[in-house]
Amino acid sequence: MSEPRFPLVQLCRFVTSALQALGLPPHDAAIVAQLMAQAEAQGSDGHGLIRLAPYARRIRAGGINLRPDIRVVKERAGMALLDGDNGMGHLVMHKAAQIAIDKARHCGVAWVGARLSNHAGPASLYARMPLAQDMIGMYFAVGNANHLPPWGGLDMLLSTNPIAVAVPAGQEPPVVLDMATTVAAYGKVKAKAQRGETMPVGWMIDRLGQPLTDPKRADEGFLMPIGGYKGYGLALIVGLLAGTLNGAAMGSEVIDFNHDDTSVTNTGQAILAINPDAFGDLAAFKARVDKLVRELRGAERMPGVERIWLPGEQSHERRMASERDGIALPPALLAQLDSLAHELSILALQAS
Amino acid sequence: MSEPRFPLVQLCRFVTSALQALGLPPHDAAIVAQLMAQAEAQGSDGHGLIRLAPYARRIRAGGINLRPDIRVVKERAGMALLDGDNGMGHLVMHKAAQIAIDKARHCGVAWVGARLSNHAGPASLYARMPLAQDMIGMYFAVGNANHLPPWGGLDMLLSTNPIAVAVPAGQEPPVVLDMATTVAAYGKVKAKAQRGETMPVGWMIDRLGQPLTDPKRADEGFLMPIGGYKGYGLALIVGLLAGTLNGAAMGSEVIDFNHDDTSVTNTGQAILAINPDAFGDLAAFKARVDKLVRELRGAERMPGVERIWLPGEQSHERRMASERDGIALPPALLAQLDSLAHELSILALQAS
Repeated sequence: MSEPRFPLVQLCRFVTSALQALGLPPHDAAIVAQLMAQAEAQGSDGHGLIRLAPYARRIRAGGINLRPDIRVVKERAGMALLDGDNGMGHLVMHKAAQIAIDKARHCGVAWVGARLSNHAGPASLYARMPLAQDMIGMYFAVGNANHLPPWGGLDMLLSTNPIAVAVPAGQEPPVVLDMATTVAAYGKVKAKAQRGETMPVGWMIDRLGQPLTDPKRADEGFLMPIGGYKGYGLALIVGLLAGTLNGAAMGSEVIDFNHDDTSVTNTGQAILAINPDAFGDLAAFKARVDKLVRELRGAERMPGVERIWLPGEQSHERRMASERDGIALPPALLAQLDSLAHELSILALQAS
Repeated sequence: MSEPRFPLVQLCRFVTSALQALGLPPHDAAIVAQLMAQAEAQGSDGHGLIRLAPYARRIRAGGINLRPDIRVVKERAGMALLDGDNGMGHLVMHKAAQIAIDKARHCGVAWVGARLSNHAGPASLYARMPLAQDMIGMYFAVGNANHLPPWGGLDMLLSTNPIAVAVPAGQEPPVVLDMATTVAAYGKVKAKAQRGETMPVGWMIDRLGQPLTDPKRADEGFLMPIGGYKGYGLALIVGLLAGTLNGAAMGSEVIDFNHDDTSVTNTGQAILAINPDAFGDLAAFKARVDKLVRELRGAERMPGVERIWLPGEQSHERRMASERDGIALPPALLAQLDSLAHELSILALQAS
């Protein structure tokens, strides 16, 4: 039995009306909806429409400022610091990306950090924003729940703090890396739980160091960092750059938004835009990226490997397929969205 | 039997005279020697004095420009691109760091890339340079030999491309992450070979995917990336930022400097300096870093764990110990340095 499929624009419309019903101004609701639908379209299922219900819960609990004054509080030629005024993270980082791109046009490189932001969806959405201007984007964020102890420790003081980088190519799709600094992102754990699946060994361990594979027991253990102490180091560094530098929450200050709908999360994020045009001929740069991509893709393969993927290539194909065939939503998610539509007295999603 | 120990200044003097004998101008020789000795002092043994012999071999083969015109070829307010003119990488990145720091003072953030550079030693040396000005440093480099295939592939088209980040603290030592994007750096493989030790399972595999633990057979296999495909993605992204963006070698263009002493390596590196002063009160930032460091260090520990380390803390203690007790050099390295001294007709290192 195939899952019902929806065109992107229909998902956008549904999420926009849900967010408007929750009190967001129409323009803001449309920006957040567009980003959430894009997340779903590229296969970031842990950060797509599955997040609408928890966002709604937090908004209704008063944990989000629906009329934020998102403003620049510090600024130099190559940087800015935003105060997100506890608005939706998507709005804060959408603005941050625009400022970084504008500044990088002149400066060559620009960094924009944010504090008092909130969860903003998958990191790659923001790293990808500079691509439209032929720029490289890098994005760092403090995750919204601590699931990772320091290496050798038991107290969960760190989150999965993701890194995303997007590099424009010429004829090839852009190279887009989007990775949690843990073996699995917590969103993937939630998605496994919702689908009733078990997790592979290596994603999480319990407090005795034993593998934890039941996603419903996720609260009893913690995520494993990639490369052991290296992933711990990366998670900490990302947190220092996206959180501590901006005066945003880090360590024990991080609010677990799975269990607390009202406290201001003071989420920290940062985006870096690099303008390749400042480094030399843009077309030549893109041609070099194409050449490298083709070289990697054409490498001799290990036995049993059908294809060598570039980072972001699978998401790219997924986006193309979503555009062509619509976006499939699993039944459990559809049921959740239906019940939310009912609560908000808006039209439910209908498969066309 | 304890290994002979040398004060840092004695190692500097020895390396300076070796490099001068090889034809470097005195001032340049002193800069490179200082950085190589610092690498040794902080325990980066794969990048310390063990590199003097291969550097000498390459210099004598004509593979290094001893009178480089290291110059800015592209510049904006927040960035510069250096042409290293095939000089020693230490000189190129020493200059790059100074420019990045100067620009970040005004712009808040600055990025300096380099092409036509060479191997420059451990990444942390350069990420640490902005610390003296209370700035954050980030360093990216294309490694000088490809030991990593794309994920699922067999052709070694990627290097261990390291990332280093240094964040200043207040009373605590700075947080300094310096990591290869592979489970082990190739320098560590070489150090194991020189010490006659075997490698742990997980560092390398052979072309059939079997663990490779004899470092003398390193040529028959390849390094494993951290977190599987994630480490492959990181190695590629670092290469795009430090190599491709700068017009430096990447992929199949990378010269294996272990087997080729004459070709211009066109090594690419990049440094980013971030000025926390632009983001708000500097003392408050450093106090936040201190608080976070202490929180992590004070976390409850897993059974059997004696201490929780922060990234860079062990190197920091090693530097302190080196300053206090001198720097121990293993007998095999000493013999290598003795024979080099003989060849160059300079005074050998003598334990005091």
